[in-house]
Amino acid sequence: MRAAVLRAPGEIVVETFADPVVVKPTDAVVQVVAACVCGSDLWPYRGVSAGRGRMGHEFLGIVVEVGAEVAAVRTGQLVIAPFLWSCGHCVQCRAGWPTSCLVGGGYGGEDRDGIMVDGGQGEYVRVPQADGTLVVADVTPDDARIPALLSLSDVMGTGYHAARSAGAGSGTTIAVIGDGAVGLCAVLGARHLGAERIVVLSTHPDRAELAVQFGATDVVAARGDEASDAVLDLTDGVGADGVCECVGTQASWATAVAASRPGGTIGWVGVPHEVTEGLPLFPMFRPNIGIRGGTAPARRYLPELLPFVLDGSLDPGPVFDLTVSLDDVGAGYAAMDRREAIKVLVLPGGA
Amino acid sequence: MRAAVLRAPGEIVVETFADPVVVKPTDAVVQVVAACVCGSDLWPYRGVSAGRGRMGHEFLGIVVEVGAEVAAVRTGQLVIAPFLWSCGHCVQCRAGWPTSCLVGGGYGGEDRDGIMVDGGQGEYVRVPQADGTLVVADVTPDDARIPALLSLSDVMGTGYHAARSAGAGSGTTIAVIGDGAVGLCAVLGARHLGAERIVVLSTHPDRAELAVQFGATDVVAARGDEASDAVLDLTDGVGADGVCECVGTQASWATAVAASRPGGTIGWVGVPHEVTEGLPLFPMFRPNIGIRGGTAPARRYLPELLPFVLDGSLDPGPVFDLTVSLDDVGAGYAAMDRREAIKVLVLPGGA
Repeated sequence: MRAAVLRAPGEIVVETFADPVVVKPTDAVVQVVAACVCGSDLWPYRGVSAGRGRMGHEFLGIVVEVGAEVAAVRTGQLVIAPFLWSCGHCVQCRAGWPTSCLVGGGYGGEDRDGIMVDGGQGEYVRVPQADGTLVVADVTPDDARIPALLSLSDVMGTGYHAARSAGAGSGTTIAVIGDGAVGLCAVLGARHLGAERIVVLSTHPDRAELAVQFGATDVVAARGDEASDAVLDLTDGVGADGVCECVGTQASWATAVAASRPGGTIGWVGVPHEVTEGLPLFPMFRPNIGIRGGTAPARRYLPELLPFVLDGSLDPGPVFDLTVSLDDVGAGYAAMDRREAIKVLVLPGGA
Repeated sequence: MRAAVLRAPGEIVVETFADPVVVKPTDAVVQVVAACVCGSDLWPYRGVSAGRGRMGHEFLGIVVEVGAEVAAVRTGQLVIAPFLWSCGHCVQCRAGWPTSCLVGGGYGGEDRDGIMVDGGQGEYVRVPQADGTLVVADVTPDDARIPALLSLSDVMGTGYHAARSAGAGSGTTIAVIGDGAVGLCAVLGARHLGAERIVVLSTHPDRAELAVQFGATDVVAARGDEASDAVLDLTDGVGADGVCECVGTQASWATAVAASRPGGTIGWVGVPHEVTEGLPLFPMFRPNIGIRGGTAPARRYLPELLPFVLDGSLDPGPVFDLTVSLDDVGAGYAAMDRREAIKVLVLPGGA
């Protein structure tokens, strides 16, 4: 089978590997129907982080083989894979934190199934802990909802996590920092949770337009102090009840804190990078600004959000604004790297 | 009247000042019955922060004069003063954050009543925004519950804020970092909120004993990794549901994060100091450890906790283990500075 490999920063190639097979009785093998490129894939691509090798951790596909102990999915079913494996029955999974699964959870070690062996940007993936990880969607591979369903593997769950963590709910005002795919999904998540007012910070007109389509009520086309001042102006000087921090830099954190009301909550899902001076502790302490969030428990949210995607009331599909074949995945990376694409859909079967 | 003044680091003296009088129609003047020394008073005392001048922000006393617009308190009543003035009717006060009061809240400016003019460690205090700030307790100055009532001015409210922010409640396991007066009140607060298990970190046997008296179910006589490992051992490797961070240093934050379960919450009330490297962001992000808290809204908690202090079911009084007269307030600072006293009660009328 063929799969994308990061050989060196900026160099994505497609190589041939042996087809994966069931190794453990809890494994399944999935033939990938659709995958995507994550913003975090750009870090090793840009050389910011050291990762190399097989790429992609967001995909959906058809189950082609299951191990002897797999009971929840069977061959021929279309399944969505959240971006971390999880057993579904350990204390962390039961508490709603599959991201900290004691068996999977992305952590390595001989006794764990935590580390992804295949990348999602390939033709086949061996999925450990298939029962706890995969979620069946009763659709066919040519269904128009495939992009929306694929978004549940990571980006929509992550945006939703930001909105939930920020306390989005009926009557709340939510500010969203970041107009990338995650920020846009946070807007959608805030709307889904019933937020009354959703203020998105965006200096890109096309992304702002999509944000409005997703439910943003106000667009602030500014950055830094100018942006947080605008949020305060929109809220009678009080600040937003909740802020979705979907960027993760020193500057975005400063904006998030400054835009929050006293007692407000910052829902953070932007993996912290370049936060060289740490969080602004005193500006948080005095007005009791809390933070909540982290790695999104996409697996927990999958069955929660799936019905809304299936009935069409939740459609994150438009975050994908470029579709490529596996052969052209390098062009997809390049487009995202140059911010010419918000998020790239990869079709291993051909675009 | 006479009041304590910090003249230079380590030098507390008692000086004579003009008796305060009502300046604004919203003021009241309170004759101090009892005051206390706060852990934060030690910072300027130790020269760590630059503050000088009149000291003390925790007191209760008898109202001796009220301005024309004061309606909620009258002369002769015994009142408890939370450590920040608040108007009680601005958007922040109404939202439960008197600590961010737009009129008081400890913030300066010509149009605000925010900055304390007199210190609590003196015979009289002019209290701005008396209606929004003071809470009446129907007791006499010689009542045995005076220490417990005084604790509601700051330390008990702050410990309670840690416990509430950490999510203490029925069935929860709460770890408390810090065995000072605030940490001990966090134990009491966690018990009050119904926590099932309360693990206190304490290397001082006398404080650990008081913690157990206050409701701690487990004592970990260790610091750092050894302490967080012990919390994990006590919780089947999972970690505490909530952690009360009552210290505020780099080391205590590391312990708090390491002792928390995935998805847990750190209730922070320890004013950050010496957090030179910032919070441990990655160890918080991956397992979704949230933080909540900050400056305690003591005024909000006062009417909530007062009935329990009055009926004897909540008694933080024992945190005061040294009582001094105003003349001896310097000795009180010295005892707290040397950690010979947990918290000092000051009786301006004589000990």
